[in-house]
Amino acid sequence: MSVTVPQGFRASGTTAGLKDSGKPDVAVVVNDGPDRHAAAVFTTNRVAAAPVLWSRQVLTDGRVDAVVLNSGGANAATGHPGFQDTHATAEHAAQQLGVSAGDVVVCSTGLIGLPLPMERLLPGVSDAVGKLSADGGADAAEAIMTTDTVPKTSEHQGPGYTIGAMAKGAGMLAPGMATMLCVITTDAVVAPQQLDAALREAVRTTLNRADSDGCMSTNDTVVLMSSGASGAAPEPAEFQEGLRAVCEDLARQLIADAEGAAHEITIRVVNASTEEAAEAVARAVSRSNLFKTAVFGQDPNWGRVISAVGTVPEDVAPFDAYAIDVTFNGIQVCRAAGVGEDRNLVDLSGREVTVEIDLHAGDAEATIWTNDLTHDYVHENSAYSS
Amino acid sequence: MSVTVPQGFRASGTTAGLKDSGKPDVAVVVNDGPDRHAAAVFTTNRVAAAPVLWSRQVLTDGRVDAVVLNSGGANAATGHPGFQDTHATAEHAAQQLGVSAGDVVVCSTGLIGLPLPMERLLPGVSDAVGKLSADGGADAAEAIMTTDTVPKTSEHQGPGYTIGAMAKGAGMLAPGMATMLCVITTDAVVAPQQLDAALREAVRTTLNRADSDGCMSTNDTVVLMSSGASGAAPEPAEFQEGLRAVCEDLARQLIADAEGAAHEITIRVVNASTEEAAEAVARAVSRSNLFKTAVFGQDPNWGRVISAVGTVPEDVAPFDAYAIDVTFNGIQVCRAAGVGEDRNLVDLSGREVTVEIDLHAGDAEATIWTNDLTHDYVHENSAYSS
Repeated sequence: MSVTVPQGFRASGTTAGLKDSGKPDVAVVVNDGPDRHAAAVFTTNRVAAAPVLWSRQVLTDGRVDAVVLNSGGANAATGHPGFQDTHATAEHAAQQLGVSAGDVVVCSTGLIGLPLPMERLLPGVSDAVGKLSADGGADAAEAIMTTDTVPKTSEHQGPGYTIGAMAKGAGMLAPGMATMLCVITTDAVVAPQQLDAALREAVRTTLNRADSDGCMSTNDTVVLMSSGASGAAPEPAEFQEGLRAVCEDLARQLIADAEGAAHEITIRVVNASTEEAAEAVARAVSRSNLFKTAVFGQDPNWGRVISAVGTVPEDVAPFDAYAIDVTFNGIQVCRAAGVGEDRNLVDLSGREVTVEIDLHAGDAEATIWTNDLTHDYVHENSAYSS
Repeated sequence: MSVTVPQGFRASGTTAGLKDSGKPDVAVVVNDGPDRHAAAVFTTNRVAAAPVLWSRQVLTDGRVDAVVLNSGGANAATGHPGFQDTHATAEHAAQQLGVSAGDVVVCSTGLIGLPLPMERLLPGVSDAVGKLSADGGADAAEAIMTTDTVPKTSEHQGPGYTIGAMAKGAGMLAPGMATMLCVITTDAVVAPQQLDAALREAVRTTLNRADSDGCMSTNDTVVLMSSGASGAAPEPAEFQEGLRAVCEDLARQLIADAEGAAHEITIRVVNASTEEAAEAVARAVSRSNLFKTAVFGQDPNWGRVISAVGTVPEDVAPFDAYAIDVTFNGIQVCRAAGVGEDRNLVDLSGREVTVEIDLHAGDAEATIWTNDLTHDYVHENSAYSS
């Protein structure tokens, strides 16, 4: 699995000593071609980190030769010196790889507001370049973890080509254009423009619909690279669906490993006037702490659902607020904004919870994946400084 | 203190048996005049409860003779039968008081989605009417409590007149035009139009700036009544400031008693382009669970502050994201979106925390009052069904 499943890619992970834990913290992914096409989406947070500012520039020509990633420090809120550190990281990797620094994407994750220890990071990058291999995907996926408890990888086998991917993210997890750090590779033959369009469409309904804690990161980056090494040029719709499947798989893995979560919650809004309206309603519910604590308490509290639905402005989502139905795990506990089936029929003891909200206002729908709000979330985030 | 401090008002509280706890649950406040002017603001939640739908109608002519309030049930999401119950409550109180039902405001608070036990509520209203007295303000303030641990009352002594007030609210506390239940009385001589304008202006920068948990209620109601019994017609600016002070006092009492809170947090945004921009930035920070858990952990985590600030769209709040300063309890830990003074100088061991965010984009400011996110919040809201 991971980013070295497709042909034409090497990867590695190593321990540079950026983390107190002594766990792996630097990863490199290299595209050996023949194509070096790429597309990326980044956080929409206005306090974007130095590596995001750098990598946006790298992507302007649609070519990426390598991605250098580090955990153990976000290099966010570090000012001009932080940007110089990112630049130096790209230059150092480029020199080791014999490529141009302008084709090297840099991703960082970890604490905000601390400078990276460059005297450890640069030797770590050299070490990672030395360890690059066509089997290195798993090591790379491990080296980008922060509070993640498991590495996240995915793959898709298309006709004659493959997509591979890795991602990290467990907190500050409410992507606005992308999620956390994610590298996707493919050996398909795909033009840069098609890569870009396919990535944006795939992310829009998958990684961007994962909203664990409502907090958007300063470092979110998703990079997609194609090597063309398979020689297969996929049918666009097939490639789009494969990419979407990989992104959805990663999004659900992120939610399943979110900090302190005891339930994975799927909020599906149906019969909305537009997809945007459905998304806005689902997101309002996903951000209600009262709803999220109720799910933690295994309480199918539809009153907290409809009170959150009712906060969405009418111009964003036109619907009759007194017509809403709410279903928890198949039991329609709320009918026409009033009491429906017996709430005692709902079983929320498992980890998977599906809440369906019927707006009776059209035929559009959208899904948001989120988590419950638990004691472990409070514990982890009041003790862990990020 | 409370609503019977001004002349011309009687109030009472009694136990009708709506709550399992056996605590008081019905209150009545009566305006004996000579004036019966009134103004009110209500929740902007589209799933407004039956008593809100009813009371909006009552207020259309600017006259209110009495307010009937119950805890132990919100009468929200109860459909047409719920509206009939509110109507019956108003009719019953009106009959007992010898007034018109169309001049009786009804307020309810408690669980969403359950019908009120009318066979207990109506005798309770009769009992409360029988107990009405010019000393009954404290009893009324106690009877409207739900998860509140203390009653909230306030007063203002103006030249020749008085303002008195009571409020309740501890959870689902993020008012959108009003907060929870709040009754304000005055014996000043004030015309209905002036009452309305003064109330909207006072609430805008006080009760509407209290945002404990980001969750807007279905029942928020603030009613202001004037009896004119003092014979004093206050200078408008003085009355406005007195009313604002009472509303701010209540807002801060609500935040101080919010469910599970360990810190009262004042978020002050300064040097914004507009007051709206300042408010949007302060509210974004107040709704960041990562910021709120950090304060619970006594961690002056400015990285989580600026990452929340960075989520506010540029068209809402124009500012240079890389120029932001953040001060915790007087220590400027973040300067120009980077490291400032030593974070170890910040003491967050007390309950009061002030976070000041300087946007360097103008001279407008706004303040939001919020709480931290604690184990007790999760416990209370995963166990208590509302």
